[in-house]
Amino acid sequence: MYMIDGLQAGHYDRPLLEEMVRGAMSAVTVTLGYWEDALETMDAIVAWNDLARENSDLIAIAHRADDITAIADSGRTAIILGMQNASPIQDRLGYIELFRQMGLMVMQLTYNNQNAIGGSCFEPSDSGLSRFGREVVREMNRVGMLIDLSHVGERTGVDAIELSSVPVAITHANPSSLYAHARNKSDGVLRTLAANGGVLGLNTCKYFNGAFVESARSWVDLVSRTIDIIGVDAVAVGTDFGPNVGEAELRWMRNGRWTRSNVSSVIVAGGPPLPEEWLSSILQFDRIAHELRATERFSETEIEKVMGGNWLRLYRQVLGGPARAEAAASASASR
Amino acid sequence: MYMIDGLQAGHYDRPLLEEMVRGAMSAVTVTLGYWEDALETMDAIVAWNDLARENSDLIAIAHRADDITAIADSGRTAIILGMQNASPIQDRLGYIELFRQMGLMVMQLTYNNQNAIGGSCFEPSDSGLSRFGREVVREMNRVGMLIDLSHVGERTGVDAIELSSVPVAITHANPSSLYAHARNKSDGVLRTLAANGGVLGLNTCKYFNGAFVESARSWVDLVSRTIDIIGVDAVAVGTDFGPNVGEAELRWMRNGRWTRSNVSSVIVAGGPPLPEEWLSSILQFDRIAHELRATERFSETEIEKVMGGNWLRLYRQVLGGPARAEAAASASASR
Repeated sequence: MYMIDGLQAGHYDRPLLEEMVRGAMSAVTVTLGYWEDALETMDAIVAWNDLARENSDLIAIAHRADDITAIADSGRTAIILGMQNASPIQDRLGYIELFRQMGLMVMQLTYNNQNAIGGSCFEPSDSGLSRFGREVVREMNRVGMLIDLSHVGERTGVDAIELSSVPVAITHANPSSLYAHARNKSDGVLRTLAANGGVLGLNTCKYFNGAFVESARSWVDLVSRTIDIIGVDAVAVGTDFGPNVGEAELRWMRNGRWTRSNVSSVIVAGGPPLPEEWLSSILQFDRIAHELRATERFSETEIEKVMGGNWLRLYRQVLGGPARAEAAASASASR
Repeated sequence: MYMIDGLQAGHYDRPLLEEMVRGAMSAVTVTLGYWEDALETMDAIVAWNDLARENSDLIAIAHRADDITAIADSGRTAIILGMQNASPIQDRLGYIELFRQMGLMVMQLTYNNQNAIGGSCFEPSDSGLSRFGREVVREMNRVGMLIDLSHVGERTGVDAIELSSVPVAITHANPSSLYAHARNKSDGVLRTLAANGGVLGLNTCKYFNGAFVESARSWVDLVSRTIDIIGVDAVAVGTDFGPNVGEAELRWMRNGRWTRSNVSSVIVAGGPPLPEEWLSSILQFDRIAHELRATERFSETEIEKVMGGNWLRLYRQVLGGPARAEAAASASASR
């Protein structure tokens, strides 16, 4: 079984990477940033390149879909680089390809604020995809970068799902019909996502769960009820784990450079959420599989889909086999 | 025969790319910029990516050594992206790998001015490679980016040749023993270059030639005399062609953002050099081969080395087979 966490958002050191490997994680998609521009994001990629080199016995960075299973099969954890905003491209269409070449595999169209591409779930009004946003979706399709709609508004989300030529992701959110929150997603969006082959990573962060996250059993009830809504092929896990994230970084996530107000109210006041006891580290990720088995509702094949198989299928559909460089070479060789 | 021009520095449109193909050029290394920082260089890469997509029947951008022959064998010209300064990395060691992933294959350590890496041929005093410069050389070796020493000072050049674990290039300069100019290279540097497997691209620009460039025969005399100094395995061609370069860009090359003085005196006053009649376009590149044959001094194998074989051998030694992404994948697979 390939176990994949579709979104984490923390800072990692060797002990945490050792936990990924001991926890038998095949892959983890990590967060490079939230508001960072091109150079700041490149600095974050460099930091991951360095971390991966220093810990090459534990992890490697995946640059194409096939890398994920190759790295996992070598007994390590594949790191998939993701960005929670389109800020790195600085509104330049051509930078999408450059960041894909640098290893950025997953990108949100917006974070918490409207941008040149579309609207956010926290804005009072969502324009849907702008003209540039439509170019961005097509370009991400072309270069093989996974579109993440976790923080976009409802209309932008539906626009992107319908325009994209390949399935897209909501890497870390829950159904708002099960727990009402601006960051959770309506059944309408989720059904459109699933109907187009996309995948939802259910979030274990208490902000978006309420009582569901209090025990492994109750959280798996959320999983089960989400499967009732969109089917077992569209449901996976995006824990939103944030190891080593402190108050200052939470403030950065919320305020970025766009306001001096305390906008913590849009999420929840206070510091980072404490991990639940049943899921206090990635070592316990397979508790989810155990509880899914305990429901006696799902086959082993279905459990494997939720634990990582759906992510792997989506990554394979979207990220393509070869990296762009190799694609260019094979295109030339085929003439 | 693979014909390769180791350095051009102009602006290209479809008619010029058609001339490359009609001129049977296997590959041309082009210049992304002189003083441009990371984002400006990324903009220049995007412009080349767009040009290559729009003219994919004529050219393709090479991302690894094998691409060069694959593209040439398909009847097109391989474009090799080069930069005449290390300004894109903005003094960050980790950006070298990122720019290699974006397709930058050849980079000068300095342009006309001293930088954090080393000294330039126009500075009154050359420190040699700095501590950072030594890191840069090792990192360029590691990621497979060709070191170009065309504009560095004597001491920086010798330091880099001796430190580099793979051969390096002087892509566009001439022996100063044949024509005295700050931008030309002493026999000492050239012999050190050749002894370490490096390649010199002889320059056809009149600034660095004097009377040598007046006819094909006299310029081939320069080639022949350079071979006398460093041997036929170290001599190639870097025309320094600058199509569509005007006075404003010449001023940018000379002054960048570092001075308000008119520093044209370090080169030659006036506008861009007029092309010589015998080499007024890349269509005439093979005139060099014809004149080399006319000397009755060189074997066909030797002529092939000068016309492109030496560049191809160097690119293969330095740029590596796989792009970095693929290297990462195969590293993981080999565990």
